[in-house]
Parts: sequence; structure tokens; C-alpha cells
Amino acid sequence: MKGEIISVGTELLLGQIVNTNACYLSEKLANLGIDVYYTTTVGDNPSRLREVIALGWQRSDLVILTGGLGPTMDDLTRETLADFLGLELILDTSVLANLRCIFADRGREMTKNNIKQAYFPAGAQVLPNPNGTAAGMMLQREGRIVVLLPGPPFEMVPMFEKEVIPRLRSLLGKDQQVIKSRILKLYGIGESYLETVLQSLLENQGNPTLATLAKENEMHLRLTAKADLPQAAQELLAEMEGEIRRLVGKYIFAADDETMEEAVGKALLEKGKTISVAESCTGGLIGHRLTEVAGSSDYFRYGIVSYSNEAKQSLLGVEPQLISQYGAVSSQVAEAMAVGVRELGSTSLGLAVTGIAGPGGGSTDKPVGLVYVALATGGRTYVERNNLRGPRRVVKSRASQVALNFVRRYLQGYLEEIKEENG
Amino acid sequence: MKGEIISVGTELLLGQIVNTNACYLSEKLANLGIDVYYTTTVGDNPSRLREVIALGWQRSDLVILTGGLGPTMDDLTRETLADFLGLELILDTSVLANLRCIFADRGREMTKNNIKQAYFPAGAQVLPNPNGTAAGMMLQREGRIVVLLPGPPFEMVPMFEKEVIPRLRSLLGKDQQVIKSRILKLYGIGESYLETVLQSLLENQGNPTLATLAKENEMHLRLTAKADLPQAAQELLAEMEGEIRRLVGKYIFAADDETMEEAVGKALLEKGKTISVAESCTGGLIGHRLTEVAGSSDYFRYGIVSYSNEAKQSLLGVEPQLISQYGAVSSQVAEAMAVGVRELGSTSLGLAVTGIAGPGGGSTDKPVGLVYVALATGGRTYVERNNLRGPRRVVKSRASQVALNFVRRYLQGYLEEIKEENG
Repeated sequence: MKGEIISVGTELLLGQIVNTNACYLSEKLANLGIDVYYTTTVGDNPSRLREVIALGWQRSDLVILTGGLGPTMDDLTRETLADFLGLELILDTSVLANLRCIFADRGREMTKNNIKQAYFPAGAQVLPNPNGTAAGMMLQREGRIVVLLPGPPFEMVPMFEKEVIPRLRSLLGKDQQVIKSRILKLYGIGESYLETVLQSLLENQGNPTLATLAKENEMHLRLTAKADLPQAAQELLAEMEGEIRRLVGKYIFAADDETMEEAVGKALLEKGKTISVAESCTGGLIGHRLTEVAGSSDYFRYGIVSYSNEAKQSLLGVEPQLISQYGAVSSQVAEAMAVGVRELGSTSLGLAVTGIAGPGGGSTDKPVGLVYVALATGGRTYVERNNLRGPRRVVKSRASQVALNFVRRYLQGYLEEIKEENG
Repeated sequence: MKGEIISVGTELLLGQIVNTNACYLSEKLANLGIDVYYTTTVGDNPSRLREVIALGWQRSDLVILTGGLGPTMDDLTRETLADFLGLELILDTSVLANLRCIFADRGREMTKNNIKQAYFPAGAQVLPNPNGTAAGMMLQREGRIVVLLPGPPFEMVPMFEKEVIPRLRSLLGKDQQVIKSRILKLYGIGESYLETVLQSLLENQGNPTLATLAKENEMHLRLTAKADLPQAAQELLAEMEGEIRRLVGKYIFAADDETMEEAVGKALLEKGKTISVAESCTGGLIGHRLTEVAGSSDYFRYGIVSYSNEAKQSLLGVEPQLISQYGAVSSQVAEAMAVGVRELGSTSLGLAVTGIAGPGGGSTDKPVGLVYVALATGGRTYVERNNLRGPRRVVKSRASQVALNFVRRYLQGYLEEIKEENG
């Protein structure tokens, strides 16, 4: 099956937002075994949009449009598609009722503009949108499939996952060759070192293929296998994953969609540990990440953002003398913060971060990006010094990743091992 | 002048990398006054690439291609373009000499493949690439301009800035119009209500144009003006912005690149106020956002993530009875948390959030998404109840936005006014 993605929105053509939808959809379609040969971006202009739809209709079996389903006058995707296909727009009363509920919930009046979001081309299946007012739609006609999705990624992605993928799977039926991917996520290892360790796997790859991808805060290894049956593809992936884990297993913190914070949460639950966090330069980001995980209240107790020295002293019991002698950014203060927050929260673990996020506040001795991470465990307290690169946002983000990975390494027994290697 | 961007690369169609080049070039072309009506992505396939080039040649005055200038077999952009235009590829000896130097510098042998990077269609101007081996090119023919640029952004961007922009400027000559944009960011107002209020501006727009854009956490209004001179474009923008501010000024929290947290930080500094934050369902996100701003230590003191009831009681001094009588998610507890954290931090303001992020923990009375925000000011303590929609991540994100906007509204004197309208 040949697929094509059309992104609709003048804001994309003005370069005001990056088109992440096309990337996301391309990847998902590839995983379904659908070949994407073209993606096009076009503005909120009916004649040019119609022209692009006509071209897609002519050369592809599946056309996915994103954007232009909003309530405003320049949202014209539904109207243009209906016009191109010669279909009437018909009111869906259950969608309308749902729209009224949404507005009632928000305590806002529904305007006349919103009503157009309840109209769909005759014969379209409505795709519900739990995250916004723009329902999507899917239509089969002339042997082709067309799907309309809202533009905002937080509405588009859940709708595609929940409503579109299952429908496409059942339409594709048995003919399809299965493509399965596996992402292994690593932290604490550089791209070129990783490539050296995996050289033989990278050079002799066939099926599965293996690729490295450096992300801002982690390294990804992407394994992709093709087979006639899902089971066979999974087996190919599992075999290669086993080899990779033998070589660099201790750096792998998660796989596929799992995040660092989910991996840490899982490890805490497995070991029956609870945690409190004292943050200086990360400003709350570690607590935020830990609580992105549903059920995190089972292991996360206290977060203290001690942005001032007084907070470090009065709440965490850090000795003023320690701060004056070694400075707020020091291994000694990091240790004292970790011990203090562990006691305050009466948790098994106390995690602390203190560092210099920049752009100001650095010195020759203590440059921007210097970050100490400490973990109090009741017995030993572990501390590590890190030099992180990047602007303020990136230093904060990397510091939170270092700290969460520190907890994972401790729980998985890799903490001392990796330290020795690095030192 | 009509421009068109063609991104070449199978990795883009597989969703392995996000196409930031198209976004970058779109914005730059818009600023030059060149209208971009289409951007297309196509793989490293000569027949489909040729088809896309042909389409661009037919409908645009300027076609910019990125990617496919590398040394490997699947890099075919130069060959395909030359073939389409019926032009011979001619060796540029100075580019070849430069390639030899690059390889000598790196201590590597130059492969035969690399030699093709020294061939250019007859009549092309070579665009040097100080950051890689793939030189770009620019060609004028049949009243059209075609530009070929390398795919990696760190090679493409400097080449575009240094080699392409000056050439385009001189080709555009005096005819060129300046395009200036202004983004106004609003919170607390729905898209359709905003459109109703701005109806006359939206319907009678000409120059500047005006468009609404719904983001996950905010509404954007985009004003775009064209004029012969930058000053005139700015004046057109300022006039329309004035009208918009008269109509919906209290919802506007920032403009252009400014974020909510920057706006709040600026307002705190202006009023000489300091702030401490007690977070329950947001888990540290508000502290994280406040500390994304350089210099935030001037006004942000304490952050307490009181994920457990004990933390609310022991650190923030919330009466246990209040929690047992009204529940941890209640206006009473929100108020007590705000008062408690203000005292703990000895700051002018205490901000507190308590709510149900989901997916679990909701009930009929207190559904997922119920979030109370409270602001203790020393005098009055303000509280607001919000019903936020979306999955856990989105509820947290929206709760942080509601809370920061609450502070902004208080500091700008809009707090009571907006409450009355909504209530």
C-alpha cells in the first residue's frame, strides 16, 4: 500500500512551527509496512489544498491529512475534501451533543463557529477526539482511504494510535509483510564509543537493520526486522537485542516508548523503595518527571526545590558552615542535601542535585554545567560530579537525566561499576 | 515571487528525523517576502524526485532542494536535476582540488565516490560548503531559480545564510517587500470566543493578515504585515496590535518568543515581589518552569512538592482536619498550602496547586482534571477551581499554565475581573 501525508497549515509554510506530525506519521506508517513516497505541506488555501489532495488521490492508496479541522474560518480541510469528492457535509448529532458537553464542562458558551466541527462528508467514520473539539474522520472511496486528523500533535497522536492504526491494520489484512522495530535507549555512553563496541553488528547488518541515533539526552539504537509473520520478526529482534545487551547492557535504561522516569519508577517498585528529592539547579524538573508516571505517589514522597541557601539549611538541615566552606555547588553540600531530604521524607532513598545551570554563576573552578548528584541510601551516600554542556535549558534537562539514571544504576547494581570505569 | 521547498531523503519519509530544514527555509523565505505555497518531501528515488522537481518547476519561480548531494549511490539530486533540465554535468576543478585538501587534512583517502561531488550542471554557480564535502549550487534558467543545498542542517543553514540570501536579495532587487510577523500569546480564552470578539478584524483583514492558532496550552494570534520598508511593516503591526489589546488585552500574557514563565518572572521583578510554590499534582513542573528563566533566583525561593498528605501537614502546616473534612483536593487545602508555603519561604507570594492529574484518583464529585489554584498575597488569598481536560501529562501541563497565569493576572490586576466574567 502506498501512503501519502499532507500537512495543512499556513503556520507551517511560514516556518512558525516544525512539522513533527509528518515525521511521526511517516514512522508509524513505515512500521505498518505502508510505503510513504511523498509528504506535502500546503497552506489554508482551498484551491491549492484541493490541488494537493487531487495529486495524492491520483498517486496513493492512503492519504492522511492533518490540520485545518478547527472551528475558525481558515480551517477548510473538511470542506475542501468534501468538495473534491463531491460529497455533502452532514451533521453528526452525537458529535454535536458531545461538543455541547465540552463547552458546558468548561463553563463557556459554544459559538456558531464550533458547529461546523460536527459536520462530516457523507459516509465518513467519525474518529473521536478526547483531547479537543476537532473530531477526525476516515473515508473509503474509489479503492482509496482518506483520513483527516487534527493538527495539534497532542490531539493527533492519541487519535492516530487509538482510532487509525487498528482500522488500517484490519484493512491491510494478511498480505502485508510485517515490519517490527525495537528502540533500545542508552545513557552514559557516547555515540562513537557505542559504534566501536557494536562495530561488527553495524557492519554486518542485514535483517534486522541496526542504526544509532543521538538524542539530546540519550542514545537510541533502532533495530528493524522484516518478516512474513509478527512472531518471526520479533524473534529476529530479540536475538539481536540479546547480543547488544551482552555488549552494552548496563547503559540500556529503557526500550521503545518507556522513558527514564518510567524505568526508574519500575525499578523503585520492584525493589520496594521510596524516594524524596532535593533539587537546586533542576528547579523541580526531577519531581516533575517522576510524577509524569501514573502511580508515582506509591514511591515519590517529598520534593524540595531549595533554590536559596536558606532553604538548604532550614529544610534540609545542611550545615551553614558546609556551604560557606565548600560552596553550595559541592559534593559535600550535595551529600548533605541527599541525607537531609531522605530524613525529611522518611523514604528509603534521598536524591539531591546541586549545580550551575547558567548562563551566569560560573567560574574557572566551577564552570556552568558543573552538577553534583548525590544519593543517600541509609547506608552509603553516593556522589558523582558531572560536567554538562549546553545552554541553561539543556543543562537542566541533562542534570535531571543524570540524576534519574543515577538512581537506576544504584537500583540495578551498576553504580560502582560504571564509576570505576569512568574514573 | 513564489517559492517552493523540496526535501530529499528516504530517512525523512521513514520518520527517522524531523524535517527542520523545511521550517527554517520557510521562515527565511517569508522574511524575504517570498511566498512559499508548498513544501514536499520525497525519497532518494530518481523518478519520483524528477516528478516533484517537474511540478515545482511548473508552479514556482524559486525551487530549493535540500539533501541528496552526498557521495553515496543513493545521493541523486544533482544527477536528477541535470537530467530534468537537459544539462550536462561538468567537473569543477577547483571544487575537486578543495575536496582533495579536505581529505588530506583529515588524513583519509578520497574515494572515487567523492569525485562526483565536484560535478555541477552546466551554468550552475557553486556555493562553497565550509562544513562538509557537499558544495551547493544555484542555477537560473527559463526565468526560474533553482538552488541545491546539502541536507545536514549544520551545513545547510550557514550556506543558505552566507551564499543564498545575498544572491536572492540582489535578484529580488527593489521589488521585494518586507514581511514582518508578530505573535500575541493568550491564555484563558477559547479559540471560538476569541474569533467572535475579533470577528470584524478577522473578516476585514488585508494587510496585516490575522490568524488564530490553538496550542496545547495557549492561543496564538499571528499578525503578518507586508510593506516596502521594515518601519512601515512594524507600524502596520503596531496599529493592529493596539486594536487587539483593546479588545482582549487582559488575556495576552506575552508576545513573540516570550514564554509564560518569562512573563511571570518579568512581572514579579517589576512589582518587586518574590514567590514560593507548593505543588501537588504538578509535581515540580511549576518550579521547573519558573527556573527555566535565567535570573529566576532573584524572585523564586522555595518549591515544595507535597505529593503526600504528610508533606502538606508537616512542611506547609496544613491542618490534618482540613484534609479529612474537605479532602486534599479542595479549595480549603489549596488556600492553606498557599499560605503555608508563603510563610515557609518568607516571600511576598505563595502559590499552591492541588488537583487530580489522573488517570486514577477521580470520582464523580472530584473528576480527573479538577485542579485548585491558590495564591496567598499576605492580604487576601485567591482561589480558583479549574476543570482541565486531557491525559495526565496534559493535565499537569495545563495546571502549571493556569497557575502561572494566575500569578500574572494577580500582578497585572486582572484576577478579580476575569473571575467575575467566568463565574
